Amino acid sequence: MTVVSEMLKTHPKGIGDLDEAALKNCILACLECVYSCTACADACLSEETVAELRDCIQTNLDCADVCDATAKVLSRHPGATSTELLMSLLQACRAMCHACAVECEKHGDMHLHCEVCAKTCRRCVEACDELLAAL
Amino acid sequence: MTVVSEMLKTHPKGIGDLDEAALKNCILACLECVYSCTACADACLSEETVAELRDCIQTNLDCADVCDATAKVLSRHPGATSTELLMSLLQACRAMCHACAVECEKHGDMHLHCEVCAKTCRRCVEACDELLAAL
Amino acid sequence: MTVVSEMLKTHPKGIGDLDEAALKNCILACLECVYSCTACADACLSEETVAELRDCIQTNLDCADVCDATAKVLSRHPGATSTELLMSLLQACRAMCHACAVECEKHGDMHLHCEVCAKTCRRCVEACDELLAAL
Amino acid sequence: MTVVSEMLKTHPKGIGDLDEAALKNCILACLECVYSCTACADACLSEETVAELRDCIQTNLDCADVCDATAKVLSRHPGATSTELLMSLLQACRAMCHACAVECEKHGDMHLHCEVCAKTCRRCVEACDELLAAL
Repeated sequence: MTVVSEMLKTHPKGIGDLDEAALKNCILACLECVYSCTACADACLSEETVAELRDCIQTNLDCADVCDATAKVLSRHPGATSTELLMSLLQACRAMCHACAVECEKHGDMHLHCEVCAKTCRRCVEACDELLAAL
Repeated sequence: MTVVSEMLKTHPKGIGDLDEAALKNCILACLECVYSCTACADACLSEETVAELRDCIQTNLDCADVCDATAKVLSRHPGATSTELLMSLLQACRAMCHACAVECEKHGDMHLHCEVCAKTCRRCVEACDELLAAL
Repeated sequence: MTVVSEMLKTHPKGIGDLDEAALKNCILACLECVYSCTACADACLSEETVAELRDCIQTNLDCADVCDATAKVLSRHPGATSTELLMSLLQACRAMCHACAVECEKHGDMHLHCEVCAKTCRRCVEACDELLAAL
Repeated sequence: MTVVSEMLKTHPKGIGDLDEAALKNCILACLECVYSCTACADACLSEETVAELRDCIQTNLDCADVCDATAKVLSRHPGATSTELLMSLLQACRAMCHACAVECEKHGDMHLHCEVCAKTCRRCVEACDELLAAL
């Protein structure tokens, strides 16, 4: 995904006052979460113990949707989108990733996909925090 | 879209303490915004004065993405998703719809698609407010 | 969702040779499917017999994603998107909705959400067929 | 994005007869396209010559939506989704990425973001072809 670094340098207006590293990391972390939450929900669904993984599946699906929207908003030049709007969305994304990490960690010992997904969500929490701090 | 009312009654666990009318209205308003913001961005892009409509197009695209995620989270039974998470997402959605309504209203006299889209965004702001108040 | 009819009339370039009624119906049917498939997947997940509904949940999620993309592409003025591209996407969408209808119909006697969702998917199959015939 | 390789090994049912390398490459290529097409559309929108880039913006947005759906369907265990459905979606995705690559290449000499995006789209065409060949 070196394409994120490449594209960030090609925008005719640049990225303004935004911290390039923090922005890049947050876009990447969100894209990773979209994938890992979608894949973890599906893997949970195939487990024999699916009935015990209902909350995990639902939280995964919610987290994938919110990270998806956040990745797309961050992929646009933050000219029109005010800092306030960005903060509000990043806070919602951070909260959802935190909830998903907590849920996946409950099953991390039993299911490797939950362990992997929890780590991806933790990375996204951190990336949101760092971008929020840099705004 | 009577399907929203129908589906809300079929969930095996019901919708818990949620206000059914407020939930239904918010799902519908978000789905409408996804469509109208996508269509308005595209109509703006076809206007001769596209260069003056850049902020409108970008805000439309951002708004469509955030409403999309909100509609999907609301379409799920709010069992695992805590009230706090839902409030955070609804606040981000409300803020984005408000920003998009304000932007579209600047061009509503010139472009009917902006007028229609502004009204859809205003309805979504209200629907988010009502659901937030009912949580 | 009268907003679809309204917006279709506001585009500066019109909708070209496309059949307006067929286009409108297909956009609406896809939006309905995004909602009903997302909601049906979640309702299935809450059923006691969730283990028997795995295929239904997965097909619902896939169908929601493909209808989502189709609704968005159709929401744009079909100027740049060639007829060939549109046909290819509509065929994929039609096939996915057909598969989802067949899967949901297996459980329609037991679960009302599957019965409702099957009907929504059938309507989308028809709407895709009508738009394909009109292209 | 090593998370894709990691997750593919954690699914309780494995990936069946699918070619793991081809599947991984196609998921990654689709995720890259979602990002690069979203970012290229936004960069085009900021160019002084935005009026000449309308088709490029629209094709970018369409391509992002179709790659998004394809990435999500591929992120799920292809148990319920038949080979035929997967082929239909991959063909639609391949066609859209090809159209977007052709469009972006028209502006690649002028705009680096179009050059980068064209390459991402070309990689996705190849990745779809390889996965289609492996099905």
